[in-house]
Amino acid sequence: MVFDINKSIEILQRTPLILESLLQGISKEWVENNEGENTWSAYDIVGHLIHGEKTDWIPRAKVILSKAENKTFDPFDRFAQMNKDQERTIEELLKEFKEIRSKNIEELKSFQINETKLSKKGIHPELGEVNLKELLSTWVVHDLGHISQISRVMAKQFKSEVGPWSAYLGILKK
Amino acid sequence: MVFDINKSIEILQRTPLILESLLQGISKEWVENNEGENTWSAYDIVGHLIHGEKTDWIPRAKVILSKAENKTFDPFDRFAQMNKDQERTIEELLKEFKEIRSKNIEELKSFQINETKLSKKGIHPELGEVNLKELLSTWVVHDLGHISQISRVMAKQFKSEVGPWSAYLGILKK
Repeated sequence: MVFDINKSIEILQRTPLILESLLQGISKEWVENNEGENTWSAYDIVGHLIHGEKTDWIPRAKVILSKAENKTFDPFDRFAQMNKDQERTIEELLKEFKEIRSKNIEELKSFQINETKLSKKGIHPELGEVNLKELLSTWVVHDLGHISQISRVMAKQFKSEVGPWSAYLGILKK
Repeated sequence: MVFDINKSIEILQRTPLILESLLQGISKEWVENNEGENTWSAYDIVGHLIHGEKTDWIPRAKVILSKAENKTFDPFDRFAQMNKDQERTIEELLKEFKEIRSKNIEELKSFQINETKLSKKGIHPELGEVNLKELLSTWVVHDLGHISQISRVMAKQFKSEVGPWSAYLGILKK
């Protein structure tokens, strides 16, 4: 597939619903268990997605589309959610994510994306020159990657319960 | 986590909703594209999940719980969906899956699972002796594994669009 703004928004706008359908109202262990030391739980991943909405995607798109001389992005803290108040319920996190994502999609639409804008550039602090199309594609892939990760983390909770079938369950080896 | 029937049903009953939130009403390419030759699209995976509902999980649980002398399961055809009518829409498949899953969960509940029943055994044609707890755990892990796979297949559609960010997107390398 080549990048398409409408097909990107199709994914971005359903991610809150996908996360709710995976996590809302489910037993704590499914939400809070991880894959082992220094790995993330579903709870951590939702916190990470919220942090991205606040500091990554739209703020960086604005830098790219701005008239600023220096278009270097602020570095993104991939572990910010670990230093946050961990007392909030997953339902509170899901609600916050849904609200901020909805606002961000409205903002994205207000940019009236076209081919010229998609080719505009910014400077990633580590990766160097990137353009708006790449940033928006990455936003979509990042969502889907973390949905995939959440399902994997949840699958692994029954790793020791499946007996001989573990041979057929590739997800338990990832 | 140790196996728990209620926590298993929590997952099994939300899978139709998760699939709907991922796939219902979305552009065809997200549903029909795959990861390359001899790989599955989201459409294929939903077909595979339907086939599992019909011939795998509940039928095998019934063999285990039956008084039959020969408790060898029929082999499961992992590619059955490829030989089926491929003209149905994803919405039709999602509806069929939702209905059959709902019926199967009712049937699962009617078994009144307890520790004794969980330890009852059947014979897998390739893996040999397995018990009901392992079968039901595998059902849950199988759901989550395929949800993870669908998200990955979808993520890969923008593989060539993310530019330098591909270095950070582990999902594109799986």
